[in-house]
Amino acid sequence: MSIELDTGVRRSVLPGGLRVVTEHVAGMRSATVGLWVGVGSRDEQPAVAGAAHYLEHLLFKGTAQRAATQIAEEMDAVGGELNAFTSKEHTCFYAQVLDVDLPLAIDLVTDVVFEARCADADVDTERSVVLEEIAMRDDDPEDLLHEVFQETIFAGHPLARPVLGTEESIRGLDPAALRAFYRDSYQPPKMVLAVAGNVDHDDIVRRVRKSPAVGADTAADAVATDPAPPRSGVAQLSTSGQLVLRTDETEQAHLLLGTRALHRHDERRFALSVLNAALGGGMSSRLFQEIRERRGLAYQVYSAMGCYADTGLFSIYAGCQPERLGEVTGVLRTTLTDVATGGLTEVEIVRAKGQLRGGLVLGLEDTASRMVRLGKNELNYGRYYSVDDTVARIDEVTVGDVAEIAATLLREVQAVAVVGPYSHVDELPDEVHEVMA
Amino acid sequence: MSIELDTGVRRSVLPGGLRVVTEHVAGMRSATVGLWVGVGSRDEQPAVAGAAHYLEHLLFKGTAQRAATQIAEEMDAVGGELNAFTSKEHTCFYAQVLDVDLPLAIDLVTDVVFEARCADADVDTERSVVLEEIAMRDDDPEDLLHEVFQETIFAGHPLARPVLGTEESIRGLDPAALRAFYRDSYQPPKMVLAVAGNVDHDDIVRRVRKSPAVGADTAADAVATDPAPPRSGVAQLSTSGQLVLRTDETEQAHLLLGTRALHRHDERRFALSVLNAALGGGMSSRLFQEIRERRGLAYQVYSAMGCYADTGLFSIYAGCQPERLGEVTGVLRTTLTDVATGGLTEVEIVRAKGQLRGGLVLGLEDTASRMVRLGKNELNYGRYYSVDDTVARIDEVTVGDVAEIAATLLREVQAVAVVGPYSHVDELPDEVHEVMA
Repeated sequence: MSIELDTGVRRSVLPGGLRVVTEHVAGMRSATVGLWVGVGSRDEQPAVAGAAHYLEHLLFKGTAQRAATQIAEEMDAVGGELNAFTSKEHTCFYAQVLDVDLPLAIDLVTDVVFEARCADADVDTERSVVLEEIAMRDDDPEDLLHEVFQETIFAGHPLARPVLGTEESIRGLDPAALRAFYRDSYQPPKMVLAVAGNVDHDDIVRRVRKSPAVGADTAADAVATDPAPPRSGVAQLSTSGQLVLRTDETEQAHLLLGTRALHRHDERRFALSVLNAALGGGMSSRLFQEIRERRGLAYQVYSAMGCYADTGLFSIYAGCQPERLGEVTGVLRTTLTDVATGGLTEVEIVRAKGQLRGGLVLGLEDTASRMVRLGKNELNYGRYYSVDDTVARIDEVTVGDVAEIAATLLREVQAVAVVGPYSHVDELPDEVHEVMA
Repeated sequence: MSIELDTGVRRSVLPGGLRVVTEHVAGMRSATVGLWVGVGSRDEQPAVAGAAHYLEHLLFKGTAQRAATQIAEEMDAVGGELNAFTSKEHTCFYAQVLDVDLPLAIDLVTDVVFEARCADADVDTERSVVLEEIAMRDDDPEDLLHEVFQETIFAGHPLARPVLGTEESIRGLDPAALRAFYRDSYQPPKMVLAVAGNVDHDDIVRRVRKSPAVGADTAADAVATDPAPPRSGVAQLSTSGQLVLRTDETEQAHLLLGTRALHRHDERRFALSVLNAALGGGMSSRLFQEIRERRGLAYQVYSAMGCYADTGLFSIYAGCQPERLGEVTGVLRTTLTDVATGGLTEVEIVRAKGQLRGGLVLGLEDTASRMVRLGKNELNYGRYYSVDDTVARIDEVTVGDVAEIAATLLREVQAVAVVGPYSHVDELPDEVHEVMA
């Protein structure tokens, strides 16, 4: 079964439940293939915290057919990029190559994902690499801040756990537990192969079905399996306002404040994306203008939104010299209150829509971002939303919609996190304490 | 005068000396325009250190025609990206937009670059922003390390100075000095307007000539000015081996070691780029395999090369837990010695060439990277080298060429820099001291 969708998107479900979604784009020289698994850190039991990301590393260490060196050599020889990333809800292995090298890319990605050896010795070697990655993250104050913030605002919920795990959990993970996680999580019905570029859907499906790794042509053929449905549900989260400090002898104080926001099935997410763009998404946004342009208080200031299956985040970041943290927080607070009570102007909303539209359309020129769009849409919604669909939904947003979501989300700051040279929260300026009041 | 070059590249020199170089690429939806100035931090007198980068900020603060807010609003409204970057030898102001918005992008970029107001009050506001940027750089150990390394290996040469300036130099810069630097540096013969995408050369030239900012249609028409020639010359550098430590309470120790290498007019640079790819450029490279894959000693390890007009750099980076710094440095040293004495194998060289070729061809799909290629080639060489030209030069490199450049550059480490939790160089492991021996 294969359905022709708008633009050049086609979708097939293989007998074992693996979905293949492709987008044909004429005239591109590159092609990007991504093999997605609908599994991330939130799916781990606390005892194996960090397993999803650890596995992402381990799978490159060799397959039944190829040693780790060989995997690296075959991809480097054609100048492509082979890599992977893990998030709270997804793991994705991908390769971006010239279109003539797509067969190799599909072969490598499926081999790595379905046929990894996960040998004991490799688990140990890679343990050190993961520990180095955690140390590197801790040395980047902005990355560390985002981590601390999520741990606070989602306290008690699986989304609170860091994707990388902790030093303790990584030291404690044994090969058998990782292999069990691999076996249980990497099931075809939870997986999507997404390919974008100058590519042919039928040829890709034929290749994937022939692959012994996928096995859809043989035994599994007899057992037609439905794809796993998108995640859903509403989180129960009751944490009250929290202020958390991570002491670090940095030059700048790094501040993140925000609130839990919309899950990805909430129809108000388009209004929120307009609010996000106008409040802290670009050079003309309120926050950039107030904090950087008018007052020169920061180099970086922005807002950000994230949607998960059952909850979401809306947050504001600013980095500044410690002696200005009070003033910066005061201006942030006033700006948020203004928008919460007065909404945004028609002009700001028209501009924010233009900004989102331009960014979406520019993204079409990159096969990697098209591949990500295909894979995420399939896992998150079980269908494809084209850029035109999204632009249309954004265009429908009204001044009233934005005012409403601003009033809902900007009145209350649920968590504030600071990374900086303070030894105790009491040393933080009054404005930081007051921002949650 | 306009010359049709290979691929879709055309070049015109306007009467005032400004060069316009465009590349027509059919089927692209984006277009990128960059206005390059052949001026960077190496062109500053020590008294105005950081002026080139400070100006890059200041120019966005408003023009005769537009307030800063208006500049930001006009670009955000079409969802484009307007930004700039400064390096040791170049400053570039650029905008990436949908092709229909190219006229606006050209108008904004030329207005900002030629007609900036540089008002006293804006100099003061932006001073704080630049100081924040310096503090942010200092909070990123890898960025800080590269800075410390360059200060050491180029000691006594203008390339040693940090692009951002120092806290002291930025505090001391007054508006009149900045305006003088602007007036003296931003001269059309030193500048290149580079545009890539689905664009029309003649239309762009017409637009730019009409712009009162450029003024090429009026007074300057009478005075035909030649473009400035590319930088040349050979640096006199005699620093002997130096080990430098910047104490920082980081989780990882960050190490950079290397040597002065080839300037950009040196024909051996293609052999060096092959060496760089094979030694530390990809997952299959010797350093990645030895340090990360086999031993799990680091998350990040890579080599890098940089070419300037009169000298260059070849360096190796690794980040690891402090207790492993000795072992990492030992493995680095052995690997460099092996390659310096034995060169690389035919197989490694074929693979490195494939890697470089794939990366270059994939880059063609991005109008921003094409624009950068156009601008840099014109300023650095006074002509255009297509990707095909470069690929051909890389293909000519032999096993012997690589062995020769490896023997020249890898025998001697001229500088080692470390950022990490050590209070004195004496605390660094022996291997770090020995690597320069």
